[in-house]
Amino acid sequence: MNRYLVTVFPVLGDDYREKIRDAAEQYGFTALFYDSPEEAAHILPEAEIILSKDSILADHAPGLKWFCTPTAGADQFLNKEVFTRGQAVLTNSSGAYGVTISEHVVMLVLVILRRQMEYNEIVSRKEWIRMLPVRSIRDSRITLVGTGDIGQETAIRLRGFTPQSLTGVNLRGGNPGNLFDRIVKSCDLETVLPQTDILIVSLPGTSDTSGMLNGERLSLLPDGAVVINVGRGTVIEQSALENELRQGRLFAGLDVFEKEPIPADDPFWTCPNLIITPHVAGDTTLPYTVKRIVELFLQDLDNYAHGRALERQVDVEQGY
Amino acid sequence: MNRYLVTVFPVLGDDYREKIRDAAEQYGFTALFYDSPEEAAHILPEAEIILSKDSILADHAPGLKWFCTPTAGADQFLNKEVFTRGQAVLTNSSGAYGVTISEHVVMLVLVILRRQMEYNEIVSRKEWIRMLPVRSIRDSRITLVGTGDIGQETAIRLRGFTPQSLTGVNLRGGNPGNLFDRIVKSCDLETVLPQTDILIVSLPGTSDTSGMLNGERLSLLPDGAVVINVGRGTVIEQSALENELRQGRLFAGLDVFEKEPIPADDPFWTCPNLIITPHVAGDTTLPYTVKRIVELFLQDLDNYAHGRALERQVDVEQGY
Repeated sequence: MNRYLVTVFPVLGDDYREKIRDAAEQYGFTALFYDSPEEAAHILPEAEIILSKDSILADHAPGLKWFCTPTAGADQFLNKEVFTRGQAVLTNSSGAYGVTISEHVVMLVLVILRRQMEYNEIVSRKEWIRMLPVRSIRDSRITLVGTGDIGQETAIRLRGFTPQSLTGVNLRGGNPGNLFDRIVKSCDLETVLPQTDILIVSLPGTSDTSGMLNGERLSLLPDGAVVINVGRGTVIEQSALENELRQGRLFAGLDVFEKEPIPADDPFWTCPNLIITPHVAGDTTLPYTVKRIVELFLQDLDNYAHGRALERQVDVEQGY
Repeated sequence: MNRYLVTVFPVLGDDYREKIRDAAEQYGFTALFYDSPEEAAHILPEAEIILSKDSILADHAPGLKWFCTPTAGADQFLNKEVFTRGQAVLTNSSGAYGVTISEHVVMLVLVILRRQMEYNEIVSRKEWIRMLPVRSIRDSRITLVGTGDIGQETAIRLRGFTPQSLTGVNLRGGNPGNLFDRIVKSCDLETVLPQTDILIVSLPGTSDTSGMLNGERLSLLPDGAVVINVGRGTVIEQSALENELRQGRLFAGLDVFEKEPIPADDPFWTCPNLIITPHVAGDTTLPYTVKRIVELFLQDLDNYAHGRALERQVDVEQGY
């Protein structure tokens, strides 16, 4: 009887398909590659392993043992019975996105501090206006809420800009790689907000993180503070942030939103002091990201084949 | 007889004026502060020291012994007889701009690699388009032409992004602070261009650097290479670069130009694959920059008062 590894991940190039096919074969699996859920439908009843970001595939694979999503966030998968009852293991690709998302974060921070969008409008009018007051990462107090792969890679990059401080915020108080000057536990988030010039949020979307940055907490940030969100939009109370942005009290660069795409009639589209990017910080168009996704998957395929625990298993209760 | 230190540098805050006044007094000088050359005109005949970016002041100060410009570039001063004949010493403020200009460089690189200007147009139309192919600093081969304060601070920041290589190009082949993976001498520039994904130019405007990056040399860069210039516009043959940008072969982020402001009818304003900033990378609106300018000036004021050589003296033959 054939054991099937089914992949629905169109950005995978032929070279990576071959690598996965070879590894699968070595462990006694037949790897099959499709570019849409429809194409794969006929084989799902026999799939033991699935690699895809389409959570719906899990609903049609009664023999599923392991589902790997090439995304970092796994919110679409958490409520599915096949995972909550423990029939199948869910893994994510946390560790593949830190490089690209951290570059997005540094870009957004600098674009805001250096007022690049205003300068872009100035030159688009062929005007030569200078001396808008800019700010610098140097000497800024930076707080990173979320110290996983994204938070760590961001801290590494920001360190070179010699900020005044890099504070990490996480659940348990650990300081991964000693990359942060100090760690504050999530329960003490409110103590660090008044001393934060740049707030960088990279939390997953779970019931615990939902609305964590509500209006009351946002109001604790000092005037002029910059808020970056590259985790999940549900973490920030969007209407409260919009209010602060419209008053000119805060500045924000957001890649994630409460509703995506942002609805056509949403006033958020034209909110001042806000840079919107359409959830592209972790796009898999970057070859390095795809390379890492495949590397991480092959590591766990080796673990799976040898009956070992999977390294990137998602705790579906916690949500990451 | 009074010895006068005349300052025409309007961005100096009262705190810095007081610091300079106190230091000057201690060394037997009277420090006077003006916000325009006109205001200072009456005292220039008696000025021994001038701190200003207005080179014209040097023409009206027959007793001048030392002129300090708060800029890094000194091209406006080089041909003045008062310096070429050696009556007065010229110093610049090299060392004050590395922090802010390196942040501008990293911003421009990321904005280009991550196609932020295209995404900005997309969201300005309230569209939700994703998956434009982006690139990363990681694994890029970066060449920094000019390894002074700006090149060094840029190298420090880029290192955190783990590029494939950081190559410095300078006249004498030294590797300041061992910040670069290798150094190539300016005379061998052509050997490194074909292996350069990101070219960062921070050279002063001198007769030696004029036209250094001409059409022939630009053509040695690989397809898709990114060119950043934050030194002087004369270093790059602008028409040759424009040609490459219009073909979509190269991408550029430029803060300096052959003519500034760019003339109103110049087609360069609407050149594709180009980000223009209006010579703002080193704007003195950043408080840190002004702080450094004052610190460096006070160091050399101490040197001057004690008859020692000035640390930031410009060689008016070399031009920096």
